[in-house]
Amino acid sequence: MEFKAILKAIVEGSSGGVGGVVMGYDGIAIDEYLRDTGGLDVQILAVEYASVLKEIKRTVGVLKTGELEEVSIVSDRCTVVVRGITADFFVAVVLTPEGNFGKARYLMKREAARLREALQ
Amino acid sequence: MEFKAILKAIVEGSSGGVGGVVMGYDGIAIDEYLRDTGGLDVQILAVEYASVLKEIKRTVGVLKTGELEEVSIVSDRCTVVVRGITADFFVAVVLTPEGNFGKARYLMKREAARLREALQ
Repeated sequence: MEFKAILKAIVEGSSGGVGGVVMGYDGIAIDEYLRDTGGLDVQILAVEYASVLKEIKRTVGVLKTGELEEVSIVSDRCTVVVRGITADFFVAVVLTPEGNFGKARYLMKREAARLREALQ
Repeated sequence: MEFKAILKAIVEGSSGGVGGVVMGYDGIAIDEYLRDTGGLDVQILAVEYASVLKEIKRTVGVLKTGELEEVSIVSDRCTVVVRGITADFFVAVVLTPEGNFGKARYLMKREAARLREALQ
């Protein structure tokens, strides 16, 4: 339940947060917390983004610009913020366009250590 | 010179901005503005990210979450903020980790219309 509690704190703390998931880069979720998702399928979003993230991770590796910390993708209908937790897992939070992007980033950064501990 | 002037305004307006480029998703740059890049190769960064962006654009298309507006990638050594201008071109700005991410996003959003006009 540790993961769900942390995800809930992040999603509910970011106004406009619709869901969060802790997932491996292989697209397999460990846990998730979903609020009213307004037609957004957070699981499918995360799975699709997992493969993109793997590609970004590879690119960042090639460019030698240090460890990948955070990726955010803003489209018309939603914002997805992703933060690397370990070499194999990431946390992703989906917000509506009206959501508080800065608050989500802040909370994810703050909770990253707790998620890392929960993974061990 | 229109592009370079707009890029300069964005890069110098974002504290910690090291360079900006207007580029096609095919990795071919139209124009760029570089400041002291502190060892970061903005051109190579942009070319590598162009192929990642193409992948993100495809994913956003598959997920039907609307047009891709903005992508940001934060790693240990730099932050790259990318904003789509047209279906074929984007603007990318590279910041140091101490750079003002919020200001860069704001300026890129504000200047997107001028860049779009300059492309026509």
